[in-house]
Amino acid sequence: MNTKAYKIKPGKKFKLSQFETSDKALINGDKNNAQVELEALRVRLEALQELLYAEGKHKLLIVLQAMDTAGKDSTIRMVFDGVNPQGVKVASFKAPTAEELAHDFLWRVHAKTPAKGEIVIFNRSHYEDVLITRVNGWIDADTCKARYQQINDFERFLAENGTTILKLYLHISKDEQKERLLERRDTPRKQWKFNPSDLASRAQWGDYMQAYTDAISATSTEHAPWYIVPANSKLQRNLVISNVICDALENLKMDYPKAVEGLEKIMVK
Amino acid sequence: MNTKAYKIKPGKKFKLSQFETSDKALINGDKNNAQVELEALRVRLEALQELLYAEGKHKLLIVLQAMDTAGKDSTIRMVFDGVNPQGVKVASFKAPTAEELAHDFLWRVHAKTPAKGEIVIFNRSHYEDVLITRVNGWIDADTCKARYQQINDFERFLAENGTTILKLYLHISKDEQKERLLERRDTPRKQWKFNPSDLASRAQWGDYMQAYTDAISATSTEHAPWYIVPANSKLQRNLVISNVICDALENLKMDYPKAVEGLEKIMVK
Repeated sequence: MNTKAYKIKPGKKFKLSQFETSDKALINGDKNNAQVELEALRVRLEALQELLYAEGKHKLLIVLQAMDTAGKDSTIRMVFDGVNPQGVKVASFKAPTAEELAHDFLWRVHAKTPAKGEIVIFNRSHYEDVLITRVNGWIDADTCKARYQQINDFERFLAENGTTILKLYLHISKDEQKERLLERRDTPRKQWKFNPSDLASRAQWGDYMQAYTDAISATSTEHAPWYIVPANSKLQRNLVISNVICDALENLKMDYPKAVEGLEKIMVK
Repeated sequence: MNTKAYKIKPGKKFKLSQFETSDKALINGDKNNAQVELEALRVRLEALQELLYAEGKHKLLIVLQAMDTAGKDSTIRMVFDGVNPQGVKVASFKAPTAEELAHDFLWRVHAKTPAKGEIVIFNRSHYEDVLITRVNGWIDADTCKARYQQINDFERFLAENGTTILKLYLHISKDEQKERLLERRDTPRKQWKFNPSDLASRAQWGDYMQAYTDAISATSTEHAPWYIVPANSKLQRNLVISNVICDALENLKMDYPKAVEGLEKIMVK
Protein backbone atom coordinates (compact mmCIF):
# COMPACT_ATOMS: atom_id res chain seq x y z
CA MET A 1 0.00 0.00 0.00
CA ASN A 2 1.21 3.49 -0.78
CA THR A 3 1.72 5.47 2.42
CA LYS A 4 4.10 8.02 0.90
CA ALA A 5 1.35 10.64 0.93
CA TYR A 6 1.58 10.66 4.73
CA LYS A 7 5.36 10.99 4.92
CA ILE A 8 6.95 14.41 5.38
CA LYS A 9 9.83 14.89 2.99
CA PRO A 10 12.96 16.36 4.57
CA GLY A 11 13.48 20.03 3.76
CA LYS A 12 10.06 20.40 2.14
CA LYS A 13 7.84 23.30 3.20
CA PHE A 14 5.28 21.84 5.53
CA LYS A 15 2.26 23.07 7.45
CA LEU A 16 0.28 20.78 9.71
CA SER A 17 -2.93 22.69 9.02
CA GLN A 18 -2.73 21.66 5.34
CA PHE A 19 -3.16 18.02 6.29
CA GLU A 20 -6.60 16.51 6.57
CA THR A 21 -7.62 15.04 9.91
CA SER A 22 -10.67 13.27 8.49
CA ASP A 23 -9.06 11.65 5.45
CA LYS A 24 -10.37 8.10 4.90
CA ALA A 25 -8.53 7.25 1.69
CA LEU A 26 -7.41 3.79 2.85
CA ILE A 27 -10.93 2.80 3.85
CA ASN A 28 -12.02 3.75 0.36
CA GLY A 29 -15.72 3.69 1.14
CA ASP A 30 -15.80 0.05 2.21
CA LYS A 31 -15.55 -0.40 5.97
CA ASN A 32 -15.98 -4.16 5.96
CA ASN A 33 -13.24 -4.63 3.43
CA ALA A 34 -11.02 -2.23 5.39
CA GLN A 35 -11.53 -4.33 8.54
CA VAL A 36 -10.50 -7.46 6.68
CA GLU A 37 -7.44 -5.65 5.41
CA LEU A 38 -6.53 -4.48 8.90
CA GLU A 39 -6.78 -8.05 10.18
CA ALA A 40 -4.47 -9.19 7.36
CA LEU A 41 -2.00 -6.47 8.36
CA ARG A 42 -2.13 -7.66 11.97
CA VAL A 43 -1.21 -11.19 10.89
CA ARG A 44 1.57 -9.77 8.69
CA LEU A 45 2.93 -7.67 11.56
CA GLU A 46 2.88 -10.68 13.88
CA ALA A 47 5.01 -12.67 11.43
CA LEU A 48 7.38 -9.77 10.78
CA GLN A 49 7.87 -9.20 14.50
CA GLU A 50 8.72 -12.86 15.02
CA LEU A 51 11.26 -12.63 12.21
CA LEU A 52 12.77 -9.44 13.67
CA TYR A 53 13.11 -11.19 17.02
CA ALA A 54 14.49 -14.41 15.54
CA GLU A 55 17.03 -12.64 13.35
CA GLY A 56 18.10 -10.44 16.27
CA LYS A 57 19.84 -7.92 14.06
CA HIS A 58 17.64 -4.87 13.59
CA LYS A 59 15.95 -2.52 16.07
CA LEU A 60 12.66 -0.71 15.51
CA LEU A 61 11.72 2.50 17.30
CA ILE A 62 8.23 3.93 16.88
CA VAL A 63 7.60 7.41 18.25
CA LEU A 64 3.97 8.37 18.93
CA GLN A 65 3.08 12.01 19.42
CA ALA A 66 -0.33 13.63 19.48
CA MET A 67 -2.72 15.96 21.25
CA ASP A 68 -4.73 14.38 24.10
CA THR A 69 -7.42 11.86 23.05
CA ALA A 70 -5.89 11.45 19.58
CA GLY A 71 -5.46 7.75 20.24
CA LYS A 72 -1.90 6.94 21.32
CA ASP A 73 -3.05 4.32 23.83
CA SER A 74 -5.65 2.85 21.53
CA THR A 75 -3.15 2.64 18.66
CA ILE A 76 -0.81 0.61 20.83
CA ARG A 77 -3.63 -1.69 21.90
CA MET A 78 -5.15 -2.17 18.47
CA VAL A 79 -2.20 -2.17 16.08
CA PHE A 80 -0.14 -4.47 18.29
CA ASP A 81 -3.03 -6.75 19.26
CA GLY A 82 -1.68 -10.29 19.19
CA VAL A 83 1.95 -9.37 18.65
CA ASN A 84 4.20 -11.21 21.09
CA PRO A 85 4.62 -8.97 24.16
CA GLN A 86 8.09 -10.42 24.63
CA GLY A 87 9.42 -8.54 21.60
CA VAL A 88 7.46 -5.31 21.97
CA LYS A 89 8.11 -2.78 24.72
CA VAL A 90 6.21 0.40 25.43
CA ALA A 91 7.99 3.33 27.07
CA SER A 92 5.67 6.07 28.33
CA PHE A 93 7.25 9.42 29.06
CA LYS A 94 5.39 11.59 31.54
CA ALA A 95 6.46 14.77 33.33
CA PRO A 96 10.15 14.21 34.11
CA THR A 97 11.25 13.25 37.63
CA ALA A 98 13.80 15.26 39.58
CA GLU A 99 16.52 12.78 38.59
CA GLU A 100 15.55 12.96 34.92
CA LEU A 101 15.52 16.76 35.02
CA ALA A 102 19.02 16.72 36.47
CA HIS A 103 20.22 15.03 33.26
CA ASP A 104 20.09 16.18 29.64
CA PHE A 105 16.72 15.75 27.89
CA LEU A 106 17.83 12.72 25.84
CA TRP A 107 19.10 10.75 28.83
CA ARG A 108 15.88 9.05 29.91
CA VAL A 109 14.94 8.43 26.29
CA HIS A 110 18.24 6.83 25.28
CA ALA A 111 17.89 4.37 28.16
CA LYS A 112 14.66 3.03 26.62
CA THR A 113 15.73 2.64 22.97
CA PRO A 114 15.32 -0.84 21.45
CA ALA A 115 17.89 -3.62 21.61
CA LYS A 116 18.53 -5.93 18.65
CA GLY A 117 15.37 -7.80 17.70
CA GLU A 118 13.11 -5.48 19.69
CA ILE A 119 10.30 -3.10 18.84
CA VAL A 120 9.98 -0.18 21.24
CA ILE A 121 7.06 2.21 21.14
CA PHE A 122 7.55 5.64 22.68
CA ASN A 123 4.22 6.89 24.06
CA ARG A 124 5.26 10.55 23.99
CA SER A 125 8.98 11.12 23.70
CA HIS A 126 11.90 13.55 23.60
CA TYR A 127 9.67 15.66 21.34
CA GLU A 128 7.82 16.89 24.43
CA ASP A 129 11.02 18.80 25.13
CA VAL A 130 10.40 20.97 22.05
CA LEU A 131 6.59 21.03 22.32
CA ILE A 132 5.04 21.53 25.78
CA THR A 133 8.23 23.30 26.84
CA ARG A 134 8.07 25.65 23.85
CA VAL A 135 4.33 26.33 23.99
CA ASN A 136 4.60 27.32 27.63
CA GLY A 137 7.72 29.40 27.12
CA TRP A 138 9.90 27.21 29.38
CA ILE A 139 12.56 27.27 26.66
CA ASP A 140 13.26 30.10 24.20
CA ALA A 141 13.42 29.87 20.40
CA ASP A 142 17.22 29.49 20.30
CA THR A 143 17.24 26.61 22.77
CA CYS A 144 14.44 24.99 20.83
CA LYS A 145 16.36 25.30 17.56
CA ALA A 146 19.47 23.86 19.19
CA ARG A 147 17.40 20.93 20.42
CA TYR A 148 16.07 20.16 16.92
CA GLN A 149 19.69 19.75 15.82
CA GLN A 150 20.54 17.66 18.88
CA ILE A 151 17.54 15.43 18.21
CA ASN A 152 18.56 14.97 14.57
CA ASP A 153 22.11 14.07 15.58
CA PHE A 154 20.86 11.64 18.22
CA GLU A 155 18.42 9.94 15.87
CA ARG A 156 21.06 9.68 13.13
CA PHE A 157 23.36 8.01 15.67
CA LEU A 158 20.64 5.49 16.52
CA ALA A 159 20.01 4.85 12.81
CA GLU A 160 23.72 4.36 12.14
CA ASN A 161 23.67 1.75 14.87
CA GLY A 162 20.93 -0.35 13.37
CA THR A 163 17.72 1.36 14.48
CA THR A 164 14.85 1.95 12.11
CA ILE A 165 12.94 5.01 13.34
CA LEU A 166 9.33 5.82 12.49
CA LYS A 167 7.76 8.95 13.96
CA LEU A 168 3.99 9.20 13.87
CA TYR A 169 1.91 12.26 14.56
CA LEU A 170 -1.72 11.28 15.16
CA HIS A 171 -3.64 14.14 13.61
CA ILE A 172 -7.12 14.95 14.97
CA SER A 173 -9.19 18.13 14.65
CA LYS A 174 -10.11 20.35 17.55
CA ASP A 175 -13.77 19.42 17.04
CA GLU A 176 -12.98 15.73 17.16
CA GLN A 177 -11.11 16.23 20.43
CA LYS A 178 -14.13 18.00 21.88
CA GLU A 179 -16.35 15.05 21.06
CA ARG A 180 -13.88 12.60 22.60
CA LEU A 181 -13.46 14.64 25.77
CA LEU A 182 -17.23 14.83 26.16
CA GLU A 183 -17.48 11.09 25.65
CA ARG A 184 -14.89 10.55 28.38
CA ARG A 185 -16.70 12.90 30.69
CA ASP A 186 -20.00 11.12 30.22
CA THR A 187 -19.00 7.43 30.03
CA PRO A 188 -18.59 5.90 33.52
CA ARG A 189 -15.79 3.47 32.55
CA LYS A 190 -13.86 6.21 30.80
CA GLN A 191 -14.18 8.96 33.38
CA TRP A 192 -10.94 8.01 35.10
CA LYS A 193 -9.14 9.08 31.93
CA PHE A 194 -10.61 12.57 32.06
CA ASN A 195 -7.92 14.91 33.27
CA PRO A 196 -9.12 18.49 33.70
CA SER A 197 -5.58 19.64 32.91
CA ASP A 198 -6.07 18.37 29.34
CA LEU A 199 -8.30 21.40 28.89
CA ALA A 200 -5.29 23.65 29.41
CA SER A 201 -3.47 22.27 26.38
CA ARG A 202 -6.74 22.32 24.44
CA ALA A 203 -6.89 26.06 25.12
CA GLN A 204 -3.40 26.34 23.54
CA TRP A 205 -4.44 24.39 20.42
CA GLY A 206 -3.14 26.96 17.92
CA ASP A 207 0.21 27.25 19.67
CA TYR A 208 0.55 23.47 19.68
CA MET A 209 -0.19 23.23 15.96
CA GLN A 210 2.56 25.80 15.35
CA ALA A 211 5.01 24.00 17.65
CA TYR A 212 4.29 20.68 15.92
CA THR A 213 4.68 22.30 12.49
CA ASP A 214 8.05 23.74 13.49
CA ALA A 215 9.31 20.56 15.16
CA ILE A 216 8.22 18.22 12.37
CA SER A 217 9.65 20.54 9.68
CA ALA A 218 12.99 20.61 11.46
CA THR A 219 13.25 16.91 12.31
CA SER A 220 11.73 14.90 9.46
CA THR A 221 14.89 13.33 8.07
CA GLU A 222 15.80 10.48 5.75
CA HIS A 223 16.87 8.33 8.68
CA ALA A 224 13.94 9.28 10.93
CA PRO A 225 10.92 10.48 8.94
CA TRP A 226 7.69 11.86 10.34
CA TYR A 227 4.31 10.61 9.19
CA ILE A 228 1.15 12.67 9.60
CA VAL A 229 -1.55 10.11 10.35
CA PRO A 230 -5.16 11.23 9.82
CA ALA A 231 -6.74 10.13 13.08
CA ASN A 232 -10.33 11.37 13.23
CA SER A 233 -11.22 7.89 11.92
CA LYS A 234 -9.68 5.16 14.05
CA LEU A 235 -9.89 2.67 11.21
CA GLN A 236 -8.01 4.95 8.81
CA ARG A 237 -5.47 5.68 11.55
CA ASN A 238 -4.84 1.99 12.23
CA LEU A 239 -4.59 1.19 8.53
CA VAL A 240 -2.01 3.91 7.89
CA ILE A 241 0.09 2.98 10.90
CA SER A 242 -0.04 -0.78 10.26
CA ASN A 243 1.00 -0.24 6.66
CA VAL A 244 3.86 2.09 7.57
CA ILE A 245 5.23 -0.35 10.14
CA CYS A 246 4.85 -3.46 7.97
CA ASP A 247 6.47 -1.74 4.99
CA ALA A 248 9.40 -0.56 7.09
CA LEU A 249 9.96 -4.05 8.49
CA GLU A 250 9.71 -5.65 5.06
CA ASN A 251 12.30 -3.23 3.72
CA LEU A 252 14.81 -4.72 6.13
CA LYS A 253 14.97 -7.90 4.01
CA MET A 254 15.23 -10.04 7.11
CA ASP A 255 15.76 -13.76 7.23
CA TYR A 256 15.70 -16.48 9.87
CA PRO A 257 19.18 -17.20 11.24
CA LYS A 258 20.96 -20.13 9.69
CA ALA A 259 20.82 -23.35 11.69
CA VAL A 260 24.02 -24.35 13.46
CA GLU A 261 26.42 -26.36 11.33
CA GLY A 262 25.60 -30.08 11.32
CA LEU A 263 22.29 -29.56 13.16
CA GLU A 264 20.62 -32.50 11.45
CA LYS A 265 23.20 -34.87 12.87
CA ILE A 266 22.80 -33.74 16.48
CA MET A 267 21.33 -36.58 18.53
CA VAL A 268 18.78 -35.96 21.26
CA LYS A 269 19.13 -38.70 23.83
CA MET B 1 -12.43 -22.87 38.03
CA ASN B 2 -10.66 -24.77 40.74
CA THR B 3 -6.91 -24.52 40.30
CA LYS B 4 -6.05 -25.36 43.90
CA ALA B 5 -4.90 -28.82 42.84
CA TYR B 6 -1.95 -27.18 41.11
CA LYS B 7 -0.93 -24.97 44.02
CA ILE B 8 1.85 -26.08 46.35
CA LYS B 9 0.85 -25.58 49.96
CA PRO B 10 3.51 -23.99 52.16
CA GLY B 11 5.31 -26.46 54.39
CA LYS B 12 3.71 -29.50 52.78
CA LYS B 13 5.90 -32.39 51.71
CA PHE B 14 6.31 -32.07 47.99
CA LYS B 15 8.00 -34.00 45.20
CA LEU B 16 7.93 -32.78 41.63
CA SER B 17 8.01 -36.32 40.31
CA GLN B 18 4.62 -36.99 41.92
CA PHE B 19 2.98 -34.42 39.66
CA GLU B 20 1.64 -35.44 36.27
CA THR B 21 3.07 -33.75 33.21
CA SER B 22 0.34 -35.02 30.90
CA ASP B 23 -2.69 -34.16 33.01
CA LYS B 24 -5.55 -32.82 30.87
CA ALA B 25 -8.19 -32.39 33.54
CA LEU B 26 -9.27 -28.91 32.44
CA ILE B 27 -9.75 -30.03 28.84
CA ASN B 28 -12.03 -32.74 30.16
CA GLY B 29 -12.10 -34.67 26.90
CA ASP B 30 -13.57 -31.86 24.84
CA LYS B 31 -10.93 -29.88 22.95
CA ASN B 32 -13.36 -27.62 21.12
CA ASN B 33 -15.08 -26.62 24.29
CA ALA B 34 -11.70 -26.07 25.97
CA GLN B 35 -10.70 -23.71 23.15
CA VAL B 36 -13.88 -21.72 23.62
CA GLU B 37 -13.19 -21.54 27.33
CA LEU B 38 -9.63 -20.36 26.72
CA GLU B 39 -10.92 -17.60 24.46
CA ALA B 40 -13.36 -16.54 27.17
CA LEU B 41 -10.48 -16.44 29.65
CA ARG B 42 -8.50 -14.26 27.25
CA VAL B 43 -11.34 -11.77 27.08
CA ARG B 44 -11.66 -11.86 30.88
CA LEU B 45 -7.91 -11.27 31.30
CA GLU B 46 -8.02 -8.34 28.88
CA ALA B 47 -10.76 -6.67 30.94
CA LEU B 48 -9.01 -7.40 34.24
CA GLN B 49 -5.73 -5.99 32.96
CA GLU B 50 -7.47 -2.79 31.87
CA LEU B 51 -9.01 -2.49 35.31
CA LEU B 52 -5.65 -3.11 37.03
CA TYR B 53 -4.12 -0.37 34.88
CA ALA B 54 -7.01 2.05 35.38
CA GLU B 55 -7.12 1.58 39.14
CA GLY B 56 -3.34 1.93 39.36
CA LYS B 57 -3.14 0.44 42.84
CA HIS B 58 -1.99 -3.18 42.61
CA LYS B 59 1.06 -4.81 41.01
CA LEU B 60 1.17 -8.30 39.51
CA LEU B 61 4.36 -10.31 39.16
CA ILE B 62 4.31 -13.62 37.30
CA VAL B 63 7.42 -15.81 37.52
CA LEU B 64 7.87 -18.43 34.79
CA GLN B 65 10.37 -21.23 35.33
CA ALA B 66 10.80 -24.43 33.35
CA MET B 67 13.16 -26.76 31.56
CA ASP B 68 13.97 -25.79 27.94
CA THR B 69 11.12 -26.19 25.41
CA ALA B 70 8.50 -26.37 28.18
CA GLY B 71 6.78 -23.33 26.69
CA LYS B 72 7.75 -20.16 28.53
CA ASP B 73 7.83 -18.09 25.32
CA SER B 74 4.70 -19.65 23.92
CA THR B 75 2.83 -19.12 27.21
CA ILE B 76 3.63 -15.43 27.07
CA ARG B 77 2.51 -15.18 23.45
CA MET B 78 -0.68 -17.19 23.84
CA VAL B 79 -1.97 -16.32 27.31
CA PHE B 80 -1.35 -12.59 26.82
CA ASP B 81 -2.55 -12.48 23.22
CA GLY B 82 -4.56 -9.30 22.84
CA VAL B 83 -3.76 -7.87 26.26
CA ASN B 84 -2.65 -4.24 26.01
CA PRO B 85 1.16 -4.28 25.66
CA GLN B 86 1.23 -0.97 27.49
CA GLY B 87 0.35 -2.60 30.78
CA VAL B 88 2.30 -5.85 30.42
CA LYS B 89 6.08 -6.02 30.52
CA VAL B 90 8.26 -9.06 30.00
CA ALA B 91 11.66 -9.26 31.69
CA SER B 92 13.91 -12.04 30.39
CA PHE B 93 16.83 -13.03 32.57
CA LYS B 94 19.73 -14.64 30.76
CA ALA B 95 23.27 -15.39 31.93
CA PRO B 96 24.18 -12.41 34.13
CA THR B 97 26.45 -9.66 32.78
CA ALA B 98 29.66 -8.65 34.53
CA GLU B 99 27.85 -5.69 36.12
CA GLU B 100 25.00 -7.89 37.33
CA LEU B 101 27.43 -10.42 38.79
CA ALA B 102 29.14 -7.63 40.69
CA HIS B 103 25.86 -7.05 42.56
CA ASP B 104 23.79 -9.36 44.76
CA PHE B 105 21.58 -11.86 42.91
CA LEU B 106 18.34 -9.96 43.58
CA TRP B 107 19.63 -6.63 42.25
CA ARG B 108 18.78 -7.07 38.57
CA VAL B 109 15.47 -8.69 39.43
CA HIS B 110 14.30 -5.97 41.82
CA ALA B 111 14.90 -3.38 39.10
CA LYS B 112 12.32 -5.09 36.89
CA THR B 113 9.50 -5.63 39.40
CA PRO B 114 6.10 -4.17 38.46
CA ALA B 115 4.97 -0.64 39.22
CA LYS B 116 1.39 0.13 40.29
CA GLY B 117 -1.09 -0.97 37.61
CA GLU B 118 1.47 -3.14 35.82
CA ILE B 119 1.78 -6.82 35.06
CA VAL B 120 5.38 -8.01 34.76
CA ILE B 121 6.28 -11.48 33.55
CA PHE B 122 9.67 -12.87 34.52
CA ASN B 123 10.91 -15.23 31.79
CA ARG B 124 13.32 -17.07 34.07
CA SER B 125 14.13 -15.25 37.28
CA HIS B 126 16.08 -15.10 40.54
CA TYR B 127 15.27 -18.82 40.84
CA GLU B 128 18.04 -19.55 38.35
CA ASP B 129 20.34 -18.56 41.21
CA VAL B 130 19.26 -21.63 43.17
CA LEU B 131 18.81 -23.94 40.14
CA ILE B 132 21.47 -23.85 37.41
CA THR B 133 23.96 -22.63 40.01
CA ARG B 134 23.12 -25.52 42.35
CA VAL B 135 22.96 -28.24 39.71
CA ASN B 136 26.39 -27.27 38.44
CA GLY B 137 27.85 -26.93 41.93
CA TRP B 138 28.64 -23.21 41.55
CA ILE B 139 27.07 -22.69 44.98
CA ASP B 140 27.08 -25.12 47.90
CA ALA B 141 24.08 -26.41 49.86
CA ASP B 142 24.47 -23.83 52.65
CA THR B 143 24.55 -20.89 50.25
CA CYS B 144 21.55 -22.33 48.47
CA LYS B 145 19.61 -22.65 51.73
CA ALA B 146 20.51 -19.10 52.68
CA ARG B 147 19.24 -17.92 49.31
CA TYR B 148 15.86 -19.64 49.78
CA GLN B 149 15.42 -17.54 52.91
CA GLN B 150 16.60 -14.39 51.17
CA ILE B 151 14.16 -15.04 48.34
CA ASN B 152 11.29 -15.55 50.78
CA ASP B 153 12.14 -12.33 52.60
CA PHE B 154 12.41 -10.41 49.33
CA GLU B 155 9.12 -11.73 47.99
CA ARG B 156 7.35 -11.01 51.28
CA PHE B 157 8.66 -7.44 51.08
CA LEU B 158 7.24 -7.11 47.56
CA ALA B 159 3.92 -8.56 48.71
CA GLU B 160 3.77 -6.18 51.69
CA ASN B 161 4.21 -3.36 49.21
CA GLY B 162 1.25 -4.26 47.03
CA THR B 163 2.60 -6.95 44.72
CA THR B 164 0.64 -10.10 43.97
CA ILE B 165 3.14 -12.84 43.13
CA LEU B 166 2.35 -15.99 41.13
CA LYS B 167 5.13 -18.47 40.45
CA LEU B 168 4.55 -21.00 37.71
CA TYR B 169 6.60 -24.08 37.00
CA LEU B 170 5.79 -25.45 33.54
CA HIS B 171 6.06 -29.19 34.02
CA ILE B 172 6.97 -31.36 31.01
CA SER B 173 8.32 -34.89 30.86
CA LYS B 174 11.75 -35.79 29.57
CA ASP B 175 10.12 -37.65 26.67
CA GLU B 176 8.05 -34.63 25.73
CA GLN B 177 11.20 -32.48 25.71
CA LYS B 178 12.85 -34.97 23.37
CA GLU B 179 9.99 -34.69 20.90
CA ARG B 180 10.07 -30.91 21.03
CA LEU B 181 13.84 -30.73 20.57
CA LEU B 182 13.58 -33.04 17.56
CA GLU B 183 10.82 -30.88 16.14
CA ARG B 184 13.02 -27.81 16.51
CA ARG B 185 15.93 -29.58 14.90
CA ASP B 186 13.87 -30.65 11.89
CA THR B 187 11.60 -27.59 11.28
CA PRO B 188 13.38 -24.91 9.21
CA ARG B 189 11.64 -21.93 10.86
CA LYS B 190 12.35 -23.27 14.32
CA GLN B 191 15.97 -24.31 13.87
CA TRP B 192 17.28 -20.95 15.07
CA LYS B 193 15.85 -21.81 18.48
CA PHE B 194 17.85 -25.01 18.72
CA ASN B 195 20.73 -24.44 21.08
CA PRO B 196 23.06 -27.43 21.39
CA SER B 197 23.83 -26.30 24.94
CA ASP B 198 20.23 -27.19 25.87
CA LEU B 199 21.36 -30.79 25.63
CA ALA B 200 23.70 -30.22 28.55
CA SER B 201 20.85 -29.37 30.92
CA ARG B 202 18.83 -32.23 29.44
CA ALA B 203 21.64 -34.58 30.48
CA GLN B 204 21.24 -33.22 34.02
CA TRP B 205 17.46 -33.83 34.05
CA GLY B 206 17.39 -35.73 37.33
CA ASP B 207 19.52 -33.15 39.11
CA TYR B 208 17.24 -30.39 37.86
CA MET B 209 14.11 -32.20 39.09
CA GLN B 210 15.75 -32.46 42.51
CA ALA B 211 16.82 -28.81 42.49
CA TYR B 212 13.29 -27.71 41.50
CA THR B 213 11.76 -29.93 44.18
CA ASP B 214 14.04 -28.40 46.80
CA ALA B 215 13.55 -24.82 45.65
CA ILE B 216 9.78 -25.06 45.31
CA SER B 217 9.42 -26.80 48.68
CA ALA B 218 11.42 -24.05 50.36
CA THR B 219 9.81 -21.06 48.65
CA SER B 220 6.13 -21.80 48.14
CA THR B 221 4.64 -19.34 50.62
CA GLU B 222 1.27 -17.79 51.36
CA HIS B 223 2.36 -14.50 49.82
CA ALA B 224 4.13 -16.06 46.82
CA PRO B 225 2.84 -19.54 46.01
CA TRP B 226 4.18 -21.92 43.39
CA TYR B 227 1.90 -23.65 40.90
CA ILE B 228 2.94 -26.82 39.10
CA VAL B 229 1.44 -26.48 35.64
CA PRO B 230 1.08 -29.70 33.61
CA ALA B 231 2.60 -28.61 30.30
CA ASN B 232 2.83 -31.62 27.99
CA SER B 233 -0.49 -30.37 26.58
CA LYS B 234 -0.29 -26.72 25.58
CA LEU B 235 -4.03 -26.31 25.87
CA GLN B 236 -4.10 -27.64 29.43
CA ARG B 237 -1.10 -25.46 30.28
CA ASN B 238 -2.77 -22.32 28.92
CA LEU B 239 -6.05 -23.12 30.67
CA VAL B 240 -4.38 -23.60 34.04
CA ILE B 241 -2.29 -20.44 33.75
CA SER B 242 -5.14 -18.27 32.46
CA ASN B 243 -7.36 -19.44 35.30
CA VAL B 244 -4.70 -18.86 37.95
CA ILE B 245 -4.03 -15.32 36.71
CA CYS B 246 -7.69 -14.35 36.28
CA ASP B 247 -8.59 -15.70 39.71
CA ALA B 248 -5.72 -13.82 41.34
CA LEU B 249 -6.73 -10.56 39.68
CA GLU B 250 -10.39 -11.03 40.58
CA ASN B 251 -9.46 -11.59 44.21
CA LEU B 252 -8.08 -8.05 44.30
CA LYS B 253 -11.64 -6.65 44.21
CA MET B 254 -10.57 -3.81 41.99
CA ASP B 255 -12.71 -0.92 40.84
CA TYR B 256 -12.41 1.92 38.36
CA PRO B 257 -11.18 5.12 40.01
CA LYS B 258 -13.83 7.59 40.99
CA ALA B 259 -14.36 10.47 38.56
CA VAL B 260 -13.06 13.85 39.69
CA GLU B 261 -15.50 15.86 41.77
CA GLY B 262 -17.96 17.84 39.68
CA LEU B 263 -16.85 16.16 36.44
CA GLU B 264 -20.28 16.39 34.87
CA LYS B 265 -20.22 20.17 35.14
CA ILE B 266 -16.84 20.63 33.43
CA MET B 267 -17.32 22.44 30.14
CA VAL B 268 -15.31 21.51 27.07
CA LYS B 269 -15.01 24.63 24.91
